[in-house]
Amino acid sequence: MNQPVDADEARHLESLYSPLTQSVRKLIDLVIRSEADDENVRQAHDLIEQAAHLLGSQVDSEPFGVRTTTDGGILTWGNVAIGMRNAMAPPLQVVHGRDGSAAADVTLGAPYEGPPGHVHGGVCALLLDHILGATAHRPGKPAFTGTLTLRYVAPTRLGGLRVNAWVESESESKTIAVGQITDPDGVVTVQAEGIFIRPRAKS
Amino acid sequence: MNQPVDADEARHLESLYSPLTQSVRKLIDLVIRSEADDENVRQAHDLIEQAAHLLGSQVDSEPFGVRTTTDGGILTWGNVAIGMRNAMAPPLQVVHGRDGSAAADVTLGAPYEGPPGHVHGGVCALLLDHILGATAHRPGKPAFTGTLTLRYVAPTRLGGLRVNAWVESESESKTIAVGQITDPDGVVTVQAEGIFIRPRAKS
Repeated sequence: MNQPVDADEARHLESLYSPLTQSVRKLIDLVIRSEADDENVRQAHDLIEQAAHLLGSQVDSEPFGVRTTTDGGILTWGNVAIGMRNAMAPPLQVVHGRDGSAAADVTLGAPYEGPPGHVHGGVCALLLDHILGATAHRPGKPAFTGTLTLRYVAPTRLGGLRVNAWVESESESKTIAVGQITDPDGVVTVQAEGIFIRPRAKS
Repeated sequence: MNQPVDADEARHLESLYSPLTQSVRKLIDLVIRSEADDENVRQAHDLIEQAAHLLGSQVDSEPFGVRTTTDGGILTWGNVAIGMRNAMAPPLQVVHGRDGSAAADVTLGAPYEGPPGHVHGGVCALLLDHILGATAHRPGKPAFTGTLTLRYVAPTRLGGLRVNAWVESESESKTIAVGQITDPDGVVTVQAEGIFIRPRAKS
């Protein structure tokens, strides 16, 4: 585990990287949908290479992992589902209920497409894996997916979606969770059931 | 369905957008791992905003979808798993076997992280959904995921992975496929089974 990150430094980095990552999310979408003329595309490419050069002037050789802060916070900035510094992450803003449930409202655009106009089935799986897993996480005790079963009961259109999950049963080492994706008309499009495992602490 | 894209124009666009998208993939990774000083980060952000402005000078209001070319090609450039213009896509390079199997070798870095140093369980699901689904696709007849069951049998580390799938049984409207992710040591880390549905053509 890394040294804890100073809490003030973490806030400073968040103010620096959160808007940067948001710009890269916009960029990913535009690279798919742009109809700009060739000269503009080439110029944009050149600017992106310059930006990469600046960001690459000093880099951590490791992926971000999970870091703690001096005020007890947990930073998951690299996570592909929720990471503040991961431009692939929508990012999911997970809300935890007092009953152990978890939910997120999310809007998915062109970069999450599978079948035309629809969310890729694998992205639905990613959202559900994360939200179901969130019901099983305990501070400092991450849960790993054991099994995940998905039933695609209606098409999931790109746009606004609600993802939620709740605990079906639980023991010290294991949580069984169920969940679903619901579209703006209130139609459940994908149902999921998962078993999540909390590894024993090493003694 | 859109008008077919002129085949020469498609080749031209690929030569323009393929290296651009590759640069954005690099950028996504650097935004996570950068330790550049504040001034470099701010300058990079400014350059990215400029690039977005150029690409955004003319855009398609729709997601990319699936387009055909005048020489019979199919363009899935926006797809989150395989899209040439989608910087979130590794992209998977799917190889189809004569026996209906499908496989891809892929290398996943920091942007695909879930547990520290490991591939997010939901990304494993995305890879498997796509490769299992690829066994069920027929030209002009996309297959939709019906159900997908995943068993996570060993941790999947970031790095090189092989994903493959084969047909277990098949009817006109439905393919049952199984598959797995294998790490560089030959260890199977995730197993999957899926039912994929080909909607009837509208008459």
